[in-house]
Amino acid sequence: MQSREIRLKSRPVGMPTNDDFEVATVDVPDPGDGEVTVQNVCMSVDPYMRGRMYDRKSYVPPFQIGEALTGGAVGKIVASSNPDFPEGAHVLNMNGWREAFNSNGDGLQLLGDLKAPASAYLGAIGMPGMTAYVGLLEVGALAEGETVFVSGAAGAVGSIVGQIAKIKGCRVVGSAGSADKIAWLKELGFDHAFDYHDGDLVAHIREGAPDGVDVYFDNVGGDHLQAAIHCMRPFGRIPLCGAISMYNATEPVPGPNNLTMAIGLGLTLRGFIVSHFNHLAEQFRADMEGWVTSGQVQYKETTYDGVEKAPEAFIGLFTGANTGKMIVNLTS
Amino acid sequence: MQSREIRLKSRPVGMPTNDDFEVATVDVPDPGDGEVTVQNVCMSVDPYMRGRMYDRKSYVPPFQIGEALTGGAVGKIVASSNPDFPEGAHVLNMNGWREAFNSNGDGLQLLGDLKAPASAYLGAIGMPGMTAYVGLLEVGALAEGETVFVSGAAGAVGSIVGQIAKIKGCRVVGSAGSADKIAWLKELGFDHAFDYHDGDLVAHIREGAPDGVDVYFDNVGGDHLQAAIHCMRPFGRIPLCGAISMYNATEPVPGPNNLTMAIGLGLTLRGFIVSHFNHLAEQFRADMEGWVTSGQVQYKETTYDGVEKAPEAFIGLFTGANTGKMIVNLTS
Repeated sequence: MQSREIRLKSRPVGMPTNDDFEVATVDVPDPGDGEVTVQNVCMSVDPYMRGRMYDRKSYVPPFQIGEALTGGAVGKIVASSNPDFPEGAHVLNMNGWREAFNSNGDGLQLLGDLKAPASAYLGAIGMPGMTAYVGLLEVGALAEGETVFVSGAAGAVGSIVGQIAKIKGCRVVGSAGSADKIAWLKELGFDHAFDYHDGDLVAHIREGAPDGVDVYFDNVGGDHLQAAIHCMRPFGRIPLCGAISMYNATEPVPGPNNLTMAIGLGLTLRGFIVSHFNHLAEQFRADMEGWVTSGQVQYKETTYDGVEKAPEAFIGLFTGANTGKMIVNLTS
Repeated sequence: MQSREIRLKSRPVGMPTNDDFEVATVDVPDPGDGEVTVQNVCMSVDPYMRGRMYDRKSYVPPFQIGEALTGGAVGKIVASSNPDFPEGAHVLNMNGWREAFNSNGDGLQLLGDLKAPASAYLGAIGMPGMTAYVGLLEVGALAEGETVFVSGAAGAVGSIVGQIAKIKGCRVVGSAGSADKIAWLKELGFDHAFDYHDGDLVAHIREGAPDGVDVYFDNVGGDHLQAAIHCMRPFGRIPLCGAISMYNATEPVPGPNNLTMAIGLGLTLRGFIVSHFNHLAEQFRADMEGWVTSGQVQYKETTYDGVEKAPEAFIGLFTGANTGKMIVNLTS
């Protein structure tokens, strides 16, 4: 069979454009002994991928020009010469940005019985959901009755952060970038949600959290982080999860000018990525599948159809095109 | 008796000057029933006091114009109508910046048998020493064999940080502001010490810590913090203790422009003040008196004589006039 894939054509400068990507078609032969052929059902685009488009050392190596991009995907085994991976089984894999591929099984994770649509395993029950879960509960050490502020609250991670905080009996304030997103956050049970385009961030946060913020879950960086520091309660925690406001910056962006407030208040700012907490994967999946199937955690997806739309979906992450998880469907 | 005291005459703008302070003389009557008269032997000037000279909410209330300043001091009971405080006893108190005062005993802490000169209880065995101790061991969670970088390393806190790290079997790199200070740090056993005026901070840190830094103890903020972040190892810790480079700034100073590196590296930046760890005071004193009397921890003092010299001593903290602890002797 053949597979279309998306390759990095040039390293984006500032905001990525469609011209930084190209579509190519490759042959996927019948699987050899011990191999399987995986047809991807859907793939993920995530903000962290922007960092891999720079040619620099980071926690994941950079993407290479002329090579297919990679990322999370859910696929189905369509041909198998490997008894561990029977035909028809769903597998989580890191070979997104392409329709199909062969594998000897390394890097494939059997999903077992799906308790939700396949795409949920790229979102609420997948990497973004687990990022929210470990960031809030482990890094943020959230305690019952505390007040949480989350930026990028209508995103794949932020929307889960807010809902977990509500399950844990907390007050939740969120920021997002449109009236529709704010309305959805209120449906999800957020106590206060505001559009960060309108007015002063500190005033908005204080309105939602008049007694201050115990945990600020930072998806945005920049102005949001600085404003949140102004509003923290003593011994508050700030999980640093992402800084989407800065990923396309072409010059270094100054950090918060009020970091010295952390001294007297005893604040903790702690960066993390989800793979630092892989030991919690089973516990996360059990909790989150329970919350999703019971309706305690809801999720939304913004979907694009066809691998050729993946660059557009990816760019949309930085323009606010998504509410909830951005998904590219590859086969129906 | 009479006591000279230093009052805040005007709130400093930028670097404080002698004109921001004034000397006044007050009467100290014989102690009333339950009271004692304390004559201060020596007093402390500390960088954190600069923050109290601004009229703003902080973790300690601001100093008031026309009133005597306050701060750590060691005094001797010279008259007593309070059986808890016999004449001749040494007491730690927060009524520095004056020669003598009366007290009903609140806020006086009996020092018992002194194992070192009185001034050491304002330095290595006092608040700065305990700041180093809790910051490095509790906030920084230092483990044996790790690499520590400390800025302001020839100061009252920094010099103790480095020596505790050596006791704990760690590699230690320090920055300071003169050749004399660097020479002293090497005497203290620092593995590498450099003058931050010369050349590139990142290059200096990398020279001393080619495999990266596990704990950066930040006394300085600004460029030092940014450079240290560039050099941190995965899961490194950054106790935020002070930001002396920024205390006299008249405009907000941008924070580090590389804070997003904390995400992939899993770095923790945690602010603290020593009083968050008062529960460790006894353990600290026992450990530190042991290290000081055995010679494992050495300290230096820069001393001024006479309460009228206290403003000059205080200003000297920001011009690098001190090696080790800055002390003002009030009676010999």
